[in-house]
Amino acid sequence: MQRIAVDMDEVMADTLGKLLARYSREQNTPLTKKDIEGKWLWQVLPPEGVELIDSYLLSDGFFEDIPVIEGSQEVLLRMSRRYQIFIATAAMAFPSSFDSKYRWLRRHYDFLSPQNFVFCGDKSILHADFLIDDMPRNLASFQGEGILFTAPHNVNTTGYRRVNSWQDVDAMFLT
Amino acid sequence: MQRIAVDMDEVMADTLGKLLARYSREQNTPLTKKDIEGKWLWQVLPPEGVELIDSYLLSDGFFEDIPVIEGSQEVLLRMSRRYQIFIATAAMAFPSSFDSKYRWLRRHYDFLSPQNFVFCGDKSILHADFLIDDMPRNLASFQGEGILFTAPHNVNTTGYRRVNSWQDVDAMFLT
Repeated sequence: MQRIAVDMDEVMADTLGKLLARYSREQNTPLTKKDIEGKWLWQVLPPEGVELIDSYLLSDGFFEDIPVIEGSQEVLLRMSRRYQIFIATAAMAFPSSFDSKYRWLRRHYDFLSPQNFVFCGDKSILHADFLIDDMPRNLASFQGEGILFTAPHNVNTTGYRRVNSWQDVDAMFLT
Repeated sequence: MQRIAVDMDEVMADTLGKLLARYSREQNTPLTKKDIEGKWLWQVLPPEGVELIDSYLLSDGFFEDIPVIEGSQEVLLRMSRRYQIFIATAAMAFPSSFDSKYRWLRRHYDFLSPQNFVFCGDKSILHADFLIDDMPRNLASFQGEGILFTAPHNVNTTGYRRVNSWQDVDAMFLT
């Protein structure tokens, strides 16, 4: 059975969406995903905006109620019948996120076994056939085939097979 | 550079020692590592004793002040200059342990990067050349070479190169 590792933030969890909504509301400045295409958030925001975003990420329970990315539950459920699915998230940058991330996964993807959750930093440690991730640097060090999940910051990245949505993941792995 | 993954409990952290000391004290029944050689703790204890041990493991902060296994700091420091060291712990069985385990690692092994910490369940996900672990089932599913670190429960296990101490690890990897 082939093994697919799946990233959480921007692939299963709309973390950026939550960040932008909160920033827009608190700063009274609308900021959308469209506005930051091809850039990192820290390239677009003033230094105090970057600090604000960091404070959101570090705040207690931030990762508790992030919206699920459309289609991820249905497609992962079907994939889990045909592949070994591991969830691999770079949690070490935000140690306060461990508990929230665990609970979030259990709440929204109860068909996945916690034995297959991996909270890590450097994703080159993953032994899997595929890694679906939005971060090119994670795909670059991964030993299997990296699949790039579209996020605003990576729209201009090349060199990987790309999926724009879970519908695309479905088409790639289930048809 | 070769990569070595290292388990935490019973390899870096004397978790069993802390469990046995607390059990002996509270139950007024001396129980030592010698008493459980070749067996799992749950094979030796009465059902209510097993429940008690589980309650220790699940209690807040249990993993906060576990003693460091002798030699692990010095030898890992020297190994980290010659190998990529990853710490891989089966934290998913005890989600309440995430924070404590992270802080414990930072406190006692400040030379290791959190980017190289892996909190997982099934260790077959690890991509490394070696895994030093006391659990035969972890070594069995690991793709590289498994090195068995002696613990009471595994004294009769065969089929792996064995190390009885960090002195042995030193001799195997640094000389």
